[in-house]
Amino acid sequence: MMKDLPLSKVYQLLEPGPVVLLTTARQGRANVMTMSWHMMVEFNPPLVACVVSSADYSFAALRATKECVIAVPSLELAPKVVGIGNCSGRDVEKFARFNLTPMPAERVAPPLVAECFANLECKVVDTRLVNKYSLFVLEVLKAWTDPAKKNRKTIHHQGYGKFAVDGEVITLKSRMP
Amino acid sequence: MMKDLPLSKVYQLLEPGPVVLLTTARQGRANVMTMSWHMMVEFNPPLVACVVSSADYSFAALRATKECVIAVPSLELAPKVVGIGNCSGRDVEKFARFNLTPMPAERVAPPLVAECFANLECKVVDTRLVNKYSLFVLEVLKAWTDPAKKNRKTIHHQGYGKFAVDGEVITLKSRMP
Repeated sequence: MMKDLPLSKVYQLLEPGPVVLLTTARQGRANVMTMSWHMMVEFNPPLVACVVSSADYSFAALRATKECVIAVPSLELAPKVVGIGNCSGRDVEKFARFNLTPMPAERVAPPLVAECFANLECKVVDTRLVNKYSLFVLEVLKAWTDPAKKNRKTIHHQGYGKFAVDGEVITLKSRMP
Repeated sequence: MMKDLPLSKVYQLLEPGPVVLLTTARQGRANVMTMSWHMMVEFNPPLVACVVSSADYSFAALRATKECVIAVPSLELAPKVVGIGNCSGRDVEKFARFNLTPMPAERVAPPLVAECFANLECKVVDTRLVNKYSLFVLEVLKAWTDPAKKNRKTIHHQGYGKFAVDGEVITLKSRMP
């Protein structure tokens, strides 16, 4: 069960730099890729920048449809996350291959990933840096979290399949959101 | 002592999403801010995108001088990182206040931060998204690491002073760099 997440809290998911999945859909076919090159750009409405290489099969779908879902996996999904990154939607039906469950999104055609603890429905709002850097600016239209998924340790890629897993959480007195 | 880091390895520092410091220098005065909105854009030469809000004192210096240093702090510096984020260079000489050591960079005017385990000398290479999103594209000209700093646990901001510290490191078989 996915629950509504206020858009004003989206940055708390992406600012820490977790590896994420990105789904697209084109001509009725959904695909999913692994992504680590993303950042927050604005709090609310949440804007996100990301790089989807023109070598990625997802690039053409994202550019043409201007829609995607960013899904945030936790540690348990790490082997699937890496497997998804190791193959291409050109050759593989990834949802089937990795036994992931596509769920209908509310505002966009690409599916949510039911196994992820958060899903962000996004549309492309700025393409000025796409040709030169494959850099898309997205607006998050709708955000979901799964309250049943309590273990939300995310993974952070350090290169060549090495990932730091979220460890201890510390809290310091901050005036920043 | 800072040691040369090959530019091709820079992404391994930033892709995991650590909170970083960003130094600027203008009219002989250095400043430092805390930043979590950054991502890799290209491997080599390394390009980095970041958001420096126009409300930040560093914004004007970065836009005018087109130079900065991204310094990567580890867990030990967390209290200083938060303190730096809680005040402005308008009011405070931050290097002095937080007892941080500015070191001359090789290619840019802003200083390295000696206490950080890695420092990246950067110049601004694209400003097309600055007016609308305060989004700068940087090229890393020179990268340094301090081999003496072995404990490289970084911190990942989750909002309001809450940080996930790097925990266990796992390695999965990946075909991706």
